[in-house]
Amino acid sequence: MHANSPMLGMSGARAVDRCDQLGGGRFSESAEHLFRPYLSRAHRAAVDQVADWMKDAGMTSRIDPSGSLIGRFEGSVAGAPALLIGSHLDSVRDAGRYDGPLGVMLGIECVDALRRQSRTLPFAIEVAAFGDEEGSRFPSAMLCSRAMAGLIDESSLEIDGLADALAEWRLDRRDFLAARRDPTEFVGYLEAHIEQGPVLESENLALGIVTAIAAQRRYEVTLRGIAGHAGTNSMGLRKDALTAAAEAILTIENIARAGAADLVATVGKIEALPGVANVVPGEARFSIDVRAGTVLVRDHAADEIVGRVSAIAAERGIACTITCLHDLAPSPCAAPMMRRLEQAVTAIGQPVRKLVSGAGHDAMALAALTPMAMLFLRCKDGISHNPAESVLAGDAELALSALLAFVEILTEDLHA
Amino acid sequence: MHANSPMLGMSGARAVDRCDQLGGGRFSESAEHLFRPYLSRAHRAAVDQVADWMKDAGMTSRIDPSGSLIGRFEGSVAGAPALLIGSHLDSVRDAGRYDGPLGVMLGIECVDALRRQSRTLPFAIEVAAFGDEEGSRFPSAMLCSRAMAGLIDESSLEIDGLADALAEWRLDRRDFLAARRDPTEFVGYLEAHIEQGPVLESENLALGIVTAIAAQRRYEVTLRGIAGHAGTNSMGLRKDALTAAAEAILTIENIARAGAADLVATVGKIEALPGVANVVPGEARFSIDVRAGTVLVRDHAADEIVGRVSAIAAERGIACTITCLHDLAPSPCAAPMMRRLEQAVTAIGQPVRKLVSGAGHDAMALAALTPMAMLFLRCKDGISHNPAESVLAGDAELALSALLAFVEILTEDLHA
Repeated sequence: MHANSPMLGMSGARAVDRCDQLGGGRFSESAEHLFRPYLSRAHRAAVDQVADWMKDAGMTSRIDPSGSLIGRFEGSVAGAPALLIGSHLDSVRDAGRYDGPLGVMLGIECVDALRRQSRTLPFAIEVAAFGDEEGSRFPSAMLCSRAMAGLIDESSLEIDGLADALAEWRLDRRDFLAARRDPTEFVGYLEAHIEQGPVLESENLALGIVTAIAAQRRYEVTLRGIAGHAGTNSMGLRKDALTAAAEAILTIENIARAGAADLVATVGKIEALPGVANVVPGEARFSIDVRAGTVLVRDHAADEIVGRVSAIAAERGIACTITCLHDLAPSPCAAPMMRRLEQAVTAIGQPVRKLVSGAGHDAMALAALTPMAMLFLRCKDGISHNPAESVLAGDAELALSALLAFVEILTEDLHA
Repeated sequence: MHANSPMLGMSGARAVDRCDQLGGGRFSESAEHLFRPYLSRAHRAAVDQVADWMKDAGMTSRIDPSGSLIGRFEGSVAGAPALLIGSHLDSVRDAGRYDGPLGVMLGIECVDALRRQSRTLPFAIEVAAFGDEEGSRFPSAMLCSRAMAGLIDESSLEIDGLADALAEWRLDRRDFLAARRDPTEFVGYLEAHIEQGPVLESENLALGIVTAIAAQRRYEVTLRGIAGHAGTNSMGLRKDALTAAAEAILTIENIARAGAADLVATVGKIEALPGVANVVPGEARFSIDVRAGTVLVRDHAADEIVGRVSAIAAERGIACTITCLHDLAPSPCAAPMMRRLEQAVTAIGQPVRKLVSGAGHDAMALAALTPMAMLFLRCKDGISHNPAESVLAGDAELALSALLAFVEILTEDLHA
């Protein structure tokens, strides 16, 4: 690909640089760190900037009724079905600069390279910049990509403050569901995203091909013992909810360590009540997040965790409530799309490394609309959701080359 | 004792009932639960009510410059040194009704019984109702008893809001240190208090004699790993600060369980950062509270805990900071006062059970002023700092009988 596009060597760097440009100033709600919640002013400033870049790349663009920015680059026949390339522009609080925006920027660079090569394709390319992927503003997540895929209804939009937030963008909540698109409008969805984990880096690889977005199960555990004075309750007479939680947390770690390579289990949140240094905790609450590439692996581990945590509590005379907060099926990537991505990665001389995405992505929603694939980029130390998020310009360049190779392969397949 | 005082049988019940009267309404800052912080309106209402009860019992009373209410019952010679009986009227948030007030009420009942018996003693009796024992309002504790014992200086009073709070009571911070008393004014200090632990109840005993207030050491531990996405960080590559904390907490529990009967160690407070369900915690902070009757036992355990927590962190590649927040020497009770209390408990037909107080009490401060002893009362299920705190009227009656027996024995000793 490089031989055909003398400027391409700078495009990966430009995609990274544009993410950096969006990493502060008017593109963040906070002066201290990057925070770009869905439908905020900062999000709108980013949408407006990205729309300019889309225009420079030869695209038309519009904001859809859910607040997604959608650019379009027509193919040889106007109105042809599109290859959709996308990711999200919203961020968590204290975010890194690449989680989401990089996939959007790579989509724009892909179109820009095709425009510079004066290529016309038998399909259009659309670049989608979704909002609300992170769910960092409202008690929802992926509202925009789910709206596009037709996965939400009116009741999903009964969220305090959503109508007002949409109105700030001159959008009307009553129009939200009109963001839905029809499967016939697309030939597939491709999302490039940083891995947000350490696997590719640990294997010295720039790119990875996602096989599925993991099955997730989320629990909330409440342990109830008896609170008491830290000085006066002798050890043998205690019903300490926190030491029970500690034993549970270690057991969860051990179960996940002993399981399949794609199995992870995490306690991210913990609280001890009353939560003062001189009182034996009478109550402890914590979250459990279990993920794996398949339902089988996840459920086996989750069931073992629930059983062991209950047993630990019982042995200690502690009451235990375990509530399943959500249970997401895995989203396998579409086989033909994955195959093209493998061919594309091979075509640019990179090894094929397949891996499960432990994180959720807009691609999960899009899978319901059109065949989906995801390309992962190595990120430094596996760090994400953190200002230290970092990606190499050279890796972005390789990802762009893979996207362009994918476009060529898709063109050939559609002609065949 | 009962034979000499036909009404005495109701006095223990009245002491309990008066604590109940102070358990709500104008005597609490909160309508939902009992909260009577130092120098609050609720504290003042309690002081005014208790002053009335002191008057009914035949005492004069005054509020000292630190906000302690001090009642006095003269002996045969006006101005004679006093046996000081006391405890505190302030409370923690969501408190029980007996932690503190019961010791004050028993002091008043003791005086009332002596007045009804028309006894005059070779010493006065003072009843002290301290404030700030709990430290639930300002970042201080036991300011009143420490002021009486001469253990504080001007710098101890540089606390935001203290001068204003004193002014609400028409007290002047500049006079605070004048609460100091001279050792020659007292023959000793006696404090009756609920055990706040389960030991006496588990042995079916109403009363216990405190041998010492435990040596305490308080630490704050910070563990720093690497935060990461809960879905994308494979188990083997994680630096999870919370699983390290969980291992530390279990180890602390095991060390304390394996130690001497009077050794306790508690993790009461824990925080995981960023503290969201889908992020591997990059940081965990927790408290450690270690107590024992002797410095030797406490330090042996504390040193082992610090060493093991550091080693656990090191094995996991987690940075560890352990800061000692305070280190309180034990306060042994005065041998002659303890001996009299043993004789008193034996005189009323109760078994002598000696135990260490794991909790701190005003008696710790008073020990620097005058020979000190403490009498513990059984409390239901060992529960304290909790609205479920409960004490039997019959146990309060036995405690009162023991105090009166103590007064007789002290009288004989002083005559001898």
